[in-house]
Amino acid sequence: MPAPDTARTTLEVGILEAVRPPPAEEAKMARIAADLVARCRAAAEFFGARAEPKVVGSFEKKTQLKGADLDVFLLFSVDTPLEALKELGVKIAKSVIDEGETRYAEHPYLRGRIEGVRVDVVPAYKVASAAEMRTAVDRTPFHNEFVRERLAPSQRDEVRLLKAFLRGVGAYGSELRVQGFSGYLCELLVIRFGGFEGVMQAAAGWREGPALSVEGTVPTEVLHTARRDFGEPLVFIDPVDPSRNVASPVSLDKLALFVFAAREYLRDPRPLFFFPNPKRALTPTEIREAAATRGTRILGVTIRGSPEVDDVWIPQLRKSERALSKLLTTYGFTVARSDVQAGADGGEPVLFLFELTASHLPSANKHFGPSALHENARDFVEKWNGRPGQLSKPYVEEGRLMVDVTREFTDAADLLKDRATSVAHGKGVADAFAERFDVIELDDAAREPFTGRTSAFLQPGLPWQF
Amino acid sequence: MPAPDTARTTLEVGILEAVRPPPAEEAKMARIAADLVARCRAAAEFFGARAEPKVVGSFEKKTQLKGADLDVFLLFSVDTPLEALKELGVKIAKSVIDEGETRYAEHPYLRGRIEGVRVDVVPAYKVASAAEMRTAVDRTPFHNEFVRERLAPSQRDEVRLLKAFLRGVGAYGSELRVQGFSGYLCELLVIRFGGFEGVMQAAAGWREGPALSVEGTVPTEVLHTARRDFGEPLVFIDPVDPSRNVASPVSLDKLALFVFAAREYLRDPRPLFFFPNPKRALTPTEIREAAATRGTRILGVTIRGSPEVDDVWIPQLRKSERALSKLLTTYGFTVARSDVQAGADGGEPVLFLFELTASHLPSANKHFGPSALHENARDFVEKWNGRPGQLSKPYVEEGRLMVDVTREFTDAADLLKDRATSVAHGKGVADAFAERFDVIELDDAAREPFTGRTSAFLQPGLPWQF
Repeated sequence: MPAPDTARTTLEVGILEAVRPPPAEEAKMARIAADLVARCRAAAEFFGARAEPKVVGSFEKKTQLKGADLDVFLLFSVDTPLEALKELGVKIAKSVIDEGETRYAEHPYLRGRIEGVRVDVVPAYKVASAAEMRTAVDRTPFHNEFVRERLAPSQRDEVRLLKAFLRGVGAYGSELRVQGFSGYLCELLVIRFGGFEGVMQAAAGWREGPALSVEGTVPTEVLHTARRDFGEPLVFIDPVDPSRNVASPVSLDKLALFVFAAREYLRDPRPLFFFPNPKRALTPTEIREAAATRGTRILGVTIRGSPEVDDVWIPQLRKSERALSKLLTTYGFTVARSDVQAGADGGEPVLFLFELTASHLPSANKHFGPSALHENARDFVEKWNGRPGQLSKPYVEEGRLMVDVTREFTDAADLLKDRATSVAHGKGVADAFAERFDVIELDDAAREPFTGRTSAFLQPGLPWQF
Repeated sequence: MPAPDTARTTLEVGILEAVRPPPAEEAKMARIAADLVARCRAAAEFFGARAEPKVVGSFEKKTQLKGADLDVFLLFSVDTPLEALKELGVKIAKSVIDEGETRYAEHPYLRGRIEGVRVDVVPAYKVASAAEMRTAVDRTPFHNEFVRERLAPSQRDEVRLLKAFLRGVGAYGSELRVQGFSGYLCELLVIRFGGFEGVMQAAAGWREGPALSVEGTVPTEVLHTARRDFGEPLVFIDPVDPSRNVASPVSLDKLALFVFAAREYLRDPRPLFFFPNPKRALTPTEIREAAATRGTRILGVTIRGSPEVDDVWIPQLRKSERALSKLLTTYGFTVARSDVQAGADGGEPVLFLFELTASHLPSANKHFGPSALHENARDFVEKWNGRPGQLSKPYVEEGRLMVDVTREFTDAADLLKDRATSVAHGKGVADAFAERFDVIELDDAAREPFTGRTSAFLQPGLPWQF
């Protein structure tokens, strides 16, 4: 394990001041955590559950950024049936958190707020090793244990710098809304490369995403084939479970952004990488002007929001964004860029945005037939013999039969209005589309509640350049 | 050699009546030919040339259609230097043809008209076998000899039917304007398949262009690899020179058209295949209406005509048509169809036509940079830092850096006006473009002298369907 890098620059010292939780926050979190553990233990006893509360997450590892949340696991004995774990877990959690909100990952957990701190209470199994894990969350305590053991106290601030950097460039967080680097991945990277500077130097040298591991945790031959085996842009093999890629959520774009940002930062370190200026919020008038300058057509599609958790809802929205883009291109329109954003909270409508370079097409459309040498050639000519919408007789081009026909949709908005429900949506999004959807033009996309999202869509860029 | 097919249908008998030269024409041709040969012989003697005149071509083979031309070769002794052959050849030819026009293939020859019959007088070498040939035309007498020997007199009308059919479907003629079947290829096909019906049956069965030969003229192993060796849509190995593909000029489209026409004809034989109705000549108003229905943009580019022979000029025009289409698509416009036609004679202007489904593009254009992981990534970001025409900051998409920039040409006509001279033209076309070219809109393309060509362009189709 390389030695931690303690020769911090003035900039990094300043950043740490800003992102490290102040002593008062640490003390308050510790108090809340201890109280919560005590109350969980009492509740477990009251409900007759064989469950042990345990603080996990970044607070426990002491790598948290200012304002972090608190994770308490209820570790159930492995002889508890899964149904009982779910039921008792929620009962215990509800008894310790007022006005908690039940959320769903693999099984239900409770999210609430205590004195302004976000708290998650998560039931899991207490297994002897990660290999015996029963549910996806059972692994977490082992992550904590590993980091506790391998991360030197002096490296905790290194992790904080890395997290703050990734947050600044928009690549922090493994949730599907971000598709970036999890806190655990940040810790592993610091363990692997010694410190913030070491991680940055390493990343700056990546010409493609590498396959990484913590020394001594993975056989060399596994690592050698890991890039191919996992097939993901970046691979970091979980030291507590070699079958798992901790970097699995990292998208190609977020990896590329991080690598490029690391190079740029090392060349010219500036606070802007940690604390970028927000994109300027354009007014509706400015949005219309920006779109006019681009000369493209901006079309929006809106559906209602959903109370489903991001990890379920966001991938569905992404899938629908791809399906709607495909619909447009299949019908001959040209999509330059697209995006989908759920509203600030589940209640606001979802907005799909499409920037089109060709949104109006001529009536005439080439309809491709078989090769003129194919045995079906005559069926084609027989079929296209004065059909409605036929604009030419069949003809031969590049050896194939062709006929010019009237295009079904000459305006992209008409296509979306007619066909948006019929593409392959996920279940929740399909329901929302079935209830109601609207195809909106730029004027409406520029108005509230969409102003911010359309404004951001029209100002793509690297976060530290704003 | 299969037996000639003599069981003609009433339709075929009628067609033959219409296309076979009447006895009076045969007699006149024979008289002109005999006279020409006598005069050539006298002139050769007068100029001291060791050259023997010889009638070749379809008239000599008795496979000609009504109104065929007359080919007379001047077969020079092989000890005549090439320069002397050229000089003496033209001298002799000019002395026998009044107002002849010198044309150029591999070397000059003379084209003229005698009593309304088109006559070509062509100097060549008299070689002992096709293998010893010195110039491309030396092969022709051997073609005549082969056909005379292998084509039965009863098969001559079979050749005429095939020629007439191919002419009807627009695939007769090896010249680059047509890219179809030469007269010699028609003769070989009839020799190979016995008769018109046999050729049609064979063609109807082709799922791809076959490699053919006359039985006994080509080793089997040569034939087996011929399709790959020649790499052309249709292969018929020249019985007098196995290194040559007689079907080499046949384009994929003309092959496909013939095969499909053969199937259609066998299913329902109609005179329309031999004598299609001409496409209706649309009036300028009808042309504008047809274009409006299609909703596409029709752009024309005109240059002056050229006195060069078709075989030189037409491939250059085709090349320029492809280069201009490429120019349009490179700049983001969508070309649905294009065409180029020289005027009815060399004096009329050339018209390039382009049908565009996207002829106006928005200002915003994506400019693709390197992968964000590439070492040049920073150069890209440094370069695109508020340049003129820059519409966005650099951003990452699919792992690559991108920037939105102002498109150089948003109107296809402006692009053609600015850049039509700068694409890769052949020499003659480049000269014509340098002198002057015009980019014209539909209104002008609908007017004379372009009405007929634009009218045909807007009515693609299979010839026998009009």
